[in-house]
Amino acid sequence: MKASLIAIDWGTSNLRASLLDAHGGLLEARSAPGGVMAVPDRRFAEALLALCGDWIDTHAVPLIASGMIGSRQGWREAPYVACPAGLPAAASQLVRVQVRPGAVLHIVPGIRCIGIDGVHDVMRGEETQLWGAGLAAGDCCVLPGTHSKWAWMGEEGKVERFETFMTGEFYGLLTKHGILGRLMAFGTARPETFDAGVRLGLAQHGNALHVVFAARTAGLMGDIDPQGLPDYLSGILIGLEIASATARHPQRSVTLLGDDDLCGRYETALGIAGVDTRRASDGATTRGQWRVALQAGLAKEMA
Amino acid sequence: MKASLIAIDWGTSNLRASLLDAHGGLLEARSAPGGVMAVPDRRFAEALLALCGDWIDTHAVPLIASGMIGSRQGWREAPYVACPAGLPAAASQLVRVQVRPGAVLHIVPGIRCIGIDGVHDVMRGEETQLWGAGLAAGDCCVLPGTHSKWAWMGEEGKVERFETFMTGEFYGLLTKHGILGRLMAFGTARPETFDAGVRLGLAQHGNALHVVFAARTAGLMGDIDPQGLPDYLSGILIGLEIASATARHPQRSVTLLGDDDLCGRYETALGIAGVDTRRASDGATTRGQWRVALQAGLAKEMA
Repeated sequence: MKASLIAIDWGTSNLRASLLDAHGGLLEARSAPGGVMAVPDRRFAEALLALCGDWIDTHAVPLIASGMIGSRQGWREAPYVACPAGLPAAASQLVRVQVRPGAVLHIVPGIRCIGIDGVHDVMRGEETQLWGAGLAAGDCCVLPGTHSKWAWMGEEGKVERFETFMTGEFYGLLTKHGILGRLMAFGTARPETFDAGVRLGLAQHGNALHVVFAARTAGLMGDIDPQGLPDYLSGILIGLEIASATARHPQRSVTLLGDDDLCGRYETALGIAGVDTRRASDGATTRGQWRVALQAGLAKEMA
Repeated sequence: MKASLIAIDWGTSNLRASLLDAHGGLLEARSAPGGVMAVPDRRFAEALLALCGDWIDTHAVPLIASGMIGSRQGWREAPYVACPAGLPAAASQLVRVQVRPGAVLHIVPGIRCIGIDGVHDVMRGEETQLWGAGLAAGDCCVLPGTHSKWAWMGEEGKVERFETFMTGEFYGLLTKHGILGRLMAFGTARPETFDAGVRLGLAQHGNALHVVFAARTAGLMGDIDPQGLPDYLSGILIGLEIASATARHPQRSVTLLGDDDLCGRYETALGIAGVDTRRASDGATTRGQWRVALQAGLAKEMA
């Protein structure tokens, strides 16, 4: 089938290109190691052409991208759209950069909101996934990751508001650069230790800077062996996140969207917290990009 | 005056030796860069002799040490004494290592307790400072640092219980290795931004993994300039710590013990939280070491 759109998912540490047909279906996918941060001297056009220059030559179809490529550290900054944020606003604020003469990349803006704590919050890339995830008004969607996002959907497919939790970054920092990592042996799954961590994090979410230290003392005291400590810490942090989010916004059920392993952890932890879960269907990113492109008139759905 | 004790403060990143007179007064002090972690191949005796071998030769007085030198990564592990922990228990559990023939170092054990969350907690080095700080039963003492300690004193100078907060380590990890540090410019004090961070941390202590992200969005949105972001994050973290500790153990006043700059930050933050502060008098570490040595019969106070 004829190609109609090249959809680029360009994050901090990944670059994926999808060639889509006239129904938004996937014709071909490619990825390159390293994302925005791995491109030397801001040579973004070169990086993109290396990955899919032949598609651009062959198909001459529009290009759309979402993710950190639209950040200040990316190719060109695409200013955040304020919540409630839906497709029309995003489609009207695409930022255009020239890839080569005759080829323009359209960058989807991130979105922003102000939390109930009065503090700004931002996302870039996840908004496009949310628009592609088939969510309904009132749904809560959790996107686990370096910076986990909890998003609440409003009418007309808009993202009503959201909150960021630095759960994944904390896990990485504490295990790779901190004192907790020194007692740990990595690579072994320990579900029961993960569960114990979740329960502790859920119970002690008002006490995060203290309770994380349990992942050291449990090792020092021999309560948990070195192989169990990584999952214990992972459980504590995910428990802290879930308790924080649900204490302020009680949830009966949430939709999980993201990496399979990580979604599995959140399923378990949310189950312990008494929250039902379902998984978003695959392909939310390209489906979201396709929907933005349709809205912007870049692509046209075939009857 | 005649020397009667060599008192060693040997932590993770520092080594200080004090030569004390027969009243525990300071005759001379020396320090060497690098602590337990900086000693190559566990050659602790060499490191100590390099710093104060001449004192040992000249004065032939007992040696006592406190701090991480008694940890598993140190010279020899000195098992933790359980809370409530006072001088008699510590003095009876000194661990002896030979420095050179005829010279023995006595290592003060750390202490441990179980928190109201059912989790083990430990300290090593701070217990000796607490015993030397002239605290009374019922006092709460806060020792800010990489791992801040809040300690509550019981009868007979015992440490009744305590809690660790990883505040300083979080600040270091987030600024040196994390994404928050990328927007920051260091080296400028911004008291009003620090205060704003404290207020946010105090108000949002149930929400730590989220609210720390404010130190990124405030930069992205231009609310706080790069020079203000370090103090904003510092304030948020210290606010989180204080709110966590005081929510569970309400305090009217606390005693601060430690680094002058850091104690200044905590004074400000505790003031915002409505907690009165006083500073412990200087020299708590050597005074504590002196008191342990007296209790153990290593030193004798002159009349």
